[in-house]
Amino acid sequence: MEKSEPQIIIAHEKLFQFTVACFCQAGFDENKARSIGESLIEADLRGLNTHGVIRIPMYLDRVKAGLINPLAETKVVAEGENYAVLDAQNGMGQLSSRLAMKMALDKAASSAIAVVGVRNSNHFGAAAYYSMMALEKQAIGVCCSNTEPLMPAPGGAKAVVGNNPFSIAIPAKNRPPIVVDMATSAAAIGKIMLAQKSGQSIPLGWATDHLGSNTTDAAKALDGGLLLPVGGPKGYGISIAIDVLAGILMGSGFGENVKSPLKDLENQQRAGHMFMAINVESFLPVDQFLSNVDQLIDQIKTGPKAPGVEEVFLPGEIEHKMKAIRLREGIPLPEELVKQLEAYGQALGVRNSLMR
Amino acid sequence: MEKSEPQIIIAHEKLFQFTVACFCQAGFDENKARSIGESLIEADLRGLNTHGVIRIPMYLDRVKAGLINPLAETKVVAEGENYAVLDAQNGMGQLSSRLAMKMALDKAASSAIAVVGVRNSNHFGAAAYYSMMALEKQAIGVCCSNTEPLMPAPGGAKAVVGNNPFSIAIPAKNRPPIVVDMATSAAAIGKIMLAQKSGQSIPLGWATDHLGSNTTDAAKALDGGLLLPVGGPKGYGISIAIDVLAGILMGSGFGENVKSPLKDLENQQRAGHMFMAINVESFLPVDQFLSNVDQLIDQIKTGPKAPGVEEVFLPGEIEHKMKAIRLREGIPLPEELVKQLEAYGQALGVRNSLMR
Repeated sequence: MEKSEPQIIIAHEKLFQFTVACFCQAGFDENKARSIGESLIEADLRGLNTHGVIRIPMYLDRVKAGLINPLAETKVVAEGENYAVLDAQNGMGQLSSRLAMKMALDKAASSAIAVVGVRNSNHFGAAAYYSMMALEKQAIGVCCSNTEPLMPAPGGAKAVVGNNPFSIAIPAKNRPPIVVDMATSAAAIGKIMLAQKSGQSIPLGWATDHLGSNTTDAAKALDGGLLLPVGGPKGYGISIAIDVLAGILMGSGFGENVKSPLKDLENQQRAGHMFMAINVESFLPVDQFLSNVDQLIDQIKTGPKAPGVEEVFLPGEIEHKMKAIRLREGIPLPEELVKQLEAYGQALGVRNSLMR
Repeated sequence: MEKSEPQIIIAHEKLFQFTVACFCQAGFDENKARSIGESLIEADLRGLNTHGVIRIPMYLDRVKAGLINPLAETKVVAEGENYAVLDAQNGMGQLSSRLAMKMALDKAASSAIAVVGVRNSNHFGAAAYYSMMALEKQAIGVCCSNTEPLMPAPGGAKAVVGNNPFSIAIPAKNRPPIVVDMATSAAAIGKIMLAQKSGQSIPLGWATDHLGSNTTDAAKALDGGLLLPVGGPKGYGISIAIDVLAGILMGSGFGENVKSPLKDLENQQRAGHMFMAINVESFLPVDQFLSNVDQLIDQIKTGPKAPGVEEVFLPGEIEHKMKAIRLREGIPLPEELVKQLEAYGQALGVRNSLMR
């Protein structure tokens, strides 16, 4: 779908400056705006277009509606040697999350493993942004967040759990890091919309119709149906566990108390996040760990491939390569999106333009 | 398949005594034999028949071949306030794992979150046995293990990652605990064998043929094909992360250095495990946490169901109910298995009988 639309290629610096200007005009101070901008542009650089600047309207609509507070300061509500709980006080998820992951990394440096949670937060963008903060410290980073209910229990016809995303980042020695970054649904809604547009059926296990029955009909799925968890009971179980760890344990919203950032323009989102850092050195000499990760990567990448396949990839490897290309060549965005963002910027009084 | 076979129902105490006698005769001291027996019978009680007494021949064949050491003592190789690394010294996985989870729980009680890993271990049975040790302390338990390579990377035609299992146990207040317990493959090999026997096709995404192509033909899958990860790249990513956390980080075998407990009768298995305990109280008052878990459970269980569905279940709920029934009524085992176990016992000089 996206590929056939006309694209405009924009240098990442320009996209960043525009994004910062939008958030400044919306009431964020420049440091905060830059922090948010960095996380959004990083997603676009890595090819995670669904979590990059395409989200600017969603965030700023919530700021405008008074549902995200641009002046919020993240507050520490509990803290110990290897843990903390922060209250985002309804600020942007990116700001409290970055702080939380930094705290987790600092704490893990002297205590093997540390967890920092965030309550009363908002959509934090791409999960990998935070887990990957661990990489420069040669630590292992983990993070997860709950979302509003989007998927039913197996056999249910009501959304009861989010497609709660999580990410794990693992440093390597000479290879790109391993970065797992996934939502717990079988497929993204965008893939179902794509199937509908092209008149194709969807695989069983992706979605239900409005009655809760498994369907292969994309149109039925989109007409009041629900996304299904990846692997049925498996994705369902992971999703519930994340709601408990990121939501309940951190004293945040959970289950139906977490609201949709896109569809609910009346209530605060109350999302919860959990960040974990593991200090490799406590367990194994760092160099041995990194060499062994490289060795595992090499084992996986070599050997026979399925017919027609030239190369297999580690989690995060494609995104790693994409970032190198896009840093050099710019970020392709659908022309429609660029126009929408320009209009958004103008309405906010932003002087930067993406077109010029 | 199993249901149509003749079954024998055996009281759990009798099955436990028989199991203990087998391991004692194989060279384990009685405490160790009882500890192993408890974990195997618990799996059968909870309905996880694939991880109960059916595994006795596999374990004892390895003991007999000198590949599991019945006299091994688990050794602490690194330890701090909230972490440790143990060396199982090639003893039964159940013994080092139980010790490791106990240490993780003790350490977490004073430090919010603790991790204890085990290296040079063996198949540890059902993962939930260890995560559930957290429940009586109203803590959250997590565990995972690597296995020998069983699944390809997406597009690969060689087994490079295990169907590495993991489990998360979450205490509730008045409801049964939430217990996630899963392998990272889309389906168990037993399900594919069942499809072949009944002449049915298998869903795309369960297995490849011997060339690495996705197949719906159960016979082709079983003839040199491979299990596929649940959700393709998603299960693949989780599986790799577990190999890093349980294998590499703990200084154990990883990737192709972990051997099959069933098929490799020449090498030690070198499996690695990771156990994590989270002390709820560090983050939230325990009673509030437990009440909120109950509330989440109630949200999930109420509301509309898909056509033909009467009830939806939380992860671990069916196993919880099964245990209550089997404690009362006994454990049904296929007659064939009972005969095999009796023969095993007799060969070892066990006097207990399952039949009498």
